[in-house]
Amino acid sequence: MERPKHQGMAKNTYMRWRLPLVCLLWEVAMIVLFGVFVRFGPEADAHWEEEKQKKNITSDIENDFYFRYPSFQDVHVMIFVGFGFLMVFLKRYGFGAVGFNFLLAAFGIQWALLMQGWFHSFENGKILIGVENLINADFCVGSVCIAFGAILGKTSPIQLLIMTLFQVTLFAVNEYILLNLLHVKDAGGSMTIHTFGAYFGLTVTCILYRPNLEQSKDKQGSVYHSDLFAMIGTLYLWMYWPSFNSAVSEHGDAQHRAAINTYCSLAACVLTTMAFSSMLQKKGKLDMVHIQNATLAGGVAVGTSAEMMLTPYGALIVGFISGIVSTVGYVYLTPFLESRLHIQDTCGIHNLHAMPGLIGGIVGAITAAAATEDVYGKEGLIKAFDFTGPYQTRTPSVQGGFQAAGIVVSLLMAFAGGALVGAILKLPIWGDASDENCFEDDIYWEVPEDEESDVYHMHNPDKAASP
Amino acid sequence: MERPKHQGMAKNTYMRWRLPLVCLLWEVAMIVLFGVFVRFGPEADAHWEEEKQKKNITSDIENDFYFRYPSFQDVHVMIFVGFGFLMVFLKRYGFGAVGFNFLLAAFGIQWALLMQGWFHSFENGKILIGVENLINADFCVGSVCIAFGAILGKTSPIQLLIMTLFQVTLFAVNEYILLNLLHVKDAGGSMTIHTFGAYFGLTVTCILYRPNLEQSKDKQGSVYHSDLFAMIGTLYLWMYWPSFNSAVSEHGDAQHRAAINTYCSLAACVLTTMAFSSMLQKKGKLDMVHIQNATLAGGVAVGTSAEMMLTPYGALIVGFISGIVSTVGYVYLTPFLESRLHIQDTCGIHNLHAMPGLIGGIVGAITAAAATEDVYGKEGLIKAFDFTGPYQTRTPSVQGGFQAAGIVVSLLMAFAGGALVGAILKLPIWGDASDENCFEDDIYWEVPEDEESDVYHMHNPDKAASP
Amino acid sequence: MERPKHQGMAKNTYMRWRLPLVCLLWEVAMIVLFGVFVRFGPEADAHWEEEKQKKNITSDIENDFYFRYPSFQDVHVMIFVGFGFLMVFLKRYGFGAVGFNFLLAAFGIQWALLMQGWFHSFENGKILIGVENLINADFCVGSVCIAFGAILGKTSPIQLLIMTLFQVTLFAVNEYILLNLLHVKDAGGSMTIHTFGAYFGLTVTCILYRPNLEQSKDKQGSVYHSDLFAMIGTLYLWMYWPSFNSAVSEHGDAQHRAAINTYCSLAACVLTTMAFSSMLQKKGKLDMVHIQNATLAGGVAVGTSAEMMLTPYGALIVGFISGIVSTVGYVYLTPFLESRLHIQDTCGIHNLHAMPGLIGGIVGAITAAAATEDVYGKEGLIKAFDFTGPYQTRTPSVQGGFQAAGIVVSLLMAFAGGALVGAILKLPIWGDASDENCFEDDIYWEVPEDEESDVYHMHNPDKAASP
Repeated sequence: MERPKHQGMAKNTYMRWRLPLVCLLWEVAMIVLFGVFVRFGPEADAHWEEEKQKKNITSDIENDFYFRYPSFQDVHVMIFVGFGFLMVFLKRYGFGAVGFNFLLAAFGIQWALLMQGWFHSFENGKILIGVENLINADFCVGSVCIAFGAILGKTSPIQLLIMTLFQVTLFAVNEYILLNLLHVKDAGGSMTIHTFGAYFGLTVTCILYRPNLEQSKDKQGSVYHSDLFAMIGTLYLWMYWPSFNSAVSEHGDAQHRAAINTYCSLAACVLTTMAFSSMLQKKGKLDMVHIQNATLAGGVAVGTSAEMMLTPYGALIVGFISGIVSTVGYVYLTPFLESRLHIQDTCGIHNLHAMPGLIGGIVGAITAAAATEDVYGKEGLIKAFDFTGPYQTRTPSVQGGFQAAGIVVSLLMAFAGGALVGAILKLPIWGDASDENCFEDDIYWEVPEDEESDVYHMHNPDKAASP
Repeated sequence: MERPKHQGMAKNTYMRWRLPLVCLLWEVAMIVLFGVFVRFGPEADAHWEEEKQKKNITSDIENDFYFRYPSFQDVHVMIFVGFGFLMVFLKRYGFGAVGFNFLLAAFGIQWALLMQGWFHSFENGKILIGVENLINADFCVGSVCIAFGAILGKTSPIQLLIMTLFQVTLFAVNEYILLNLLHVKDAGGSMTIHTFGAYFGLTVTCILYRPNLEQSKDKQGSVYHSDLFAMIGTLYLWMYWPSFNSAVSEHGDAQHRAAINTYCSLAACVLTTMAFSSMLQKKGKLDMVHIQNATLAGGVAVGTSAEMMLTPYGALIVGFISGIVSTVGYVYLTPFLESRLHIQDTCGIHNLHAMPGLIGGIVGAITAAAATEDVYGKEGLIKAFDFTGPYQTRTPSVQGGFQAAGIVVSLLMAFAGGALVGAILKLPIWGDASDENCFEDDIYWEVPEDEESDVYHMHNPDKAASP
Repeated sequence: MERPKHQGMAKNTYMRWRLPLVCLLWEVAMIVLFGVFVRFGPEADAHWEEEKQKKNITSDIENDFYFRYPSFQDVHVMIFVGFGFLMVFLKRYGFGAVGFNFLLAAFGIQWALLMQGWFHSFENGKILIGVENLINADFCVGSVCIAFGAILGKTSPIQLLIMTLFQVTLFAVNEYILLNLLHVKDAGGSMTIHTFGAYFGLTVTCILYRPNLEQSKDKQGSVYHSDLFAMIGTLYLWMYWPSFNSAVSEHGDAQHRAAINTYCSLAACVLTTMAFSSMLQKKGKLDMVHIQNATLAGGVAVGTSAEMMLTPYGALIVGFISGIVSTVGYVYLTPFLESRLHIQDTCGIHNLHAMPGLIGGIVGAITAAAATEDVYGKEGLIKAFDFTGPYQTRTPSVQGGFQAAGIVVSLLMAFAGGALVGAILKLPIWGDASDENCFEDDIYWEVPEDEESDVYHMHNPDKAASP
């Protein structure tokens, strides 16, 4: 790759001391904080043997591990392979996509265990963790992976770690406001994960606007095999989304229902995505960008309502609409956002997470407001919306109002938080690449020489002779 | 890719209005039908809280979700990643393989929920669905994915959607005849999925015979990386096949046994495949086509009998034989079928699904006929073959006879259905490619420019200079 | 690929009769031995219906299948996709990596079911198998996959099958000594799988030393896409490692705890790996070799202690250290081992499995020795270390001593066994490649012509004209 580089505004992307320092210091901080705060929850502690007797639990299978561990593993795959490979579509940024996603998620889950733990699992000065905490930490990091999609290829690993630190913190605050103060239901995270994560990322990328990014335009596309790698990410997200939306729902019918609704919504979404992908192109050909992304919008858009009695046909309708919205977004909105609003959204998260996330919040509010004892049963309604304790007297329509408020809060947190973090990331000390080096792995990675050039030299004796 | 195309018999492959129309109309039909018919089953409905009390169920873990959801997710991966990537082996048809598989499966599962629902889960005018229905819908679509393998690269997405519509319908009818009228056991679908799906697809491809297909012969092969992508499909099918064959078996020992038998059969199959792949080549080298496909024949061939008391060594024997049959089929039978019977079988489904499916049906019939109270226990035998109600007096040997009848019915349905559907697909209005454009993504897909040609131009100043 | 080959010391790599013979004979032997010895365990046998009544088991969900099957499938993916694709990083050995791994693992699990069965599940002359046996067989084969990493690219498939036969045998003996005679805990196999497997493989590769291996140096590297394929392997190993370390732990809190500890350790490991990968390179760039491998050391290093009360911060510390040790090993130790000790370790298993395995054994011994009734509870301590029957009076500190002894035994078995097997493999009759043909698929595989050369010919009319 001896391609001459336009070094007009070369930047210092040297990571040798900065990146190790940040990684090591932060990991040491994690160890100290875990040492002070984090312990096993009762179902993961060796005392469970006694706990079982106390609580009259007759079988080990009642351990929450067996209710949630399979879903946890699916969610785990979505975060690391799903998001990681979905972003491998760029022709020369595969290492960065999958590698930096790995780095930020591995850090993020530790910090999320702490932040979410302080808000939700704090007892007698200790955070008690179990499998549900692992899932929630993965969820929290999911919102960072989403934001990463907007700034993919344009930031240094240090910037990503800093963003992760702040975003996880803000996520936990927002989640606390929604789930605990507003008593909102959002098991699949349409609001807390997708709406928040996407608008946060879009605000950050807007502040980090690069007017001369067309200098690396040739690297913003895909190649044949990178599109196939990206399909691995797409399919794992698509297949495991029913686990995502059901992973932290109540045991029993709620988990069951959430999986079915999500399955239906995603299936419908594929058909409308294909339809509009073909329809919106002059030549009528399908575009891999849409197939890789818009097919997933159906999962995002039932994130809030999946565990409710949305019904399978309701889920189909949501999937139908979100596939259209998302695909249309890729064709018309993304170019508009870039040219008019200076929002350079590498992966199009506005189409995949932001708009479908809003749809999800709204559908959730409507579904909650429309809930009746007839549909849920008396006890079912109480269980589904947790109308107990201080919320004993809340009615479905009031719940719908609070759900709607949750959307607004998530948006405000995203804009404010994104602006703050964007400003921090704009400081010229984090080692981001110059405009002409964006979307290029060899700034931060040792990149092997290419197979293709080997082959070339092999077949071309003249060239091979003059090294 | 400025390669001149032989446009002698150019066809109209323009999808812009046809594909969107079909997708949108059909999806609207799904929504309407789901709205009229589909509701949550009792274990996914919010009324389950009351249901539990009525039925004296003390723990949420008794919900069928926890018995079957992990298997469901594995099956889901097999359908979308397994079949999708297995077919990516073609050098320039990766988008079509994984993308069209995605499209047809996403449509197919919705239609299968309806069709199978009317036959099996219809109560008081409603189809009540739960996780087992999702698995069965995936199974049904599996048979379409198999048929897709025969016509891979030669059909338009509209043809695939039409085939899916009909095949799912016929699958459901055939399944109803086997499971309900003949009271046959076929948990892993050797007959209903593999035999039916494969002979259906082979009949279709026979009717769609293209005498001049050698015009696209150069595109029918693989390249190094496409073979590695295909191995992802192979391995996920291979690894998760124990889940496939056990997913809808009875709770408890039957699921457990089905997984073990399948594990054993598949392990044996790998060794005989490798042996014959090397033995049947003059140079003694292994062929990726065999490794990618014939290693899976062991899973197909225990599809019916896995949940029975086949025993681990019985499973080894079945795997041993089916690996050999399948590999020999690839070497000798596929060329014969093409040249003599005009059956152009792109993926060799005759070797991977048709013959092993027949073996599976036969092994199932024999295993059922050989069942004794000694081996199963009195209650075990009744439970294993569901010898209850009207079937109380059926003996194992009679059951074996019905099992054999199931094979014949599946074959007849496949030939008749395939002939019908093939005739419909032969109409010249569906936008399939001309012979020289088969196995080529850029008919239906926006294909990115190649990395390779970039590299070429980069290293070759002359070429680069004259754009 | 008409590259001229230096045929100075050409070897006979013709597999046509040798490989089929070995595969078929051994598979027949498996069938005979399974026929004589292997039967379904009580929970997979149709008699379970009666067994349930006898043992007063009220629900099918109590079947061990539901406790362990999801973990089993994750482990299965680790063995076949995880190890298989991790080794695909070599530019021209992808077929061999994933294909031979498939072959040896498929044979190995059958032989492991027998060997481990005779030692652990032998009752009344029969080996009774269930899902736990399948997991243990996969574990056993895992140690062979590890050893394969050391000799990757330098051995024939026959050598690999012979190594598998012996290594599985020795694994089972070593495991029996540790688990039954020393009564050591090692659920995630730091000692039995990683320490044993790695030092075994390193001994073998030392004996098979090739002084002129630099003749194939150009093929020992990766290319861009092969590194991305390898990341699929890495991520599946990383994500599913919590299942690996918890798969055979006691039901309930032990499985739950093992998953949490492993999750934490792996997360920490990623950060220190990234830190040191950047720090140890002059240019400060990240190296894919480290990211692909050293990020996994944290899973290896908590293999023994994960099910103990290691605590989340303890796990973070272990992950922190092992990421550093492993990365430093890749940079400094691997070259040293090759130049001074004649240990040619293709995948660097010394850094990923040997050293972290030792750390794992030591951490396990310390954690066991430090166990108290206060931390575990009275019953919890007995359950955690199985201080029952003849071990009723064993104290934690004595247990720690035995754990340490387990490390030593595993090392001795590995060295002795590796020396023996290495000597056998050195015989000149197994068809291994000559030095200049190592790391090259086309010795043993039909390799498709390259896409790249197609493209080249297409764009270069002169060349294409003269075939």
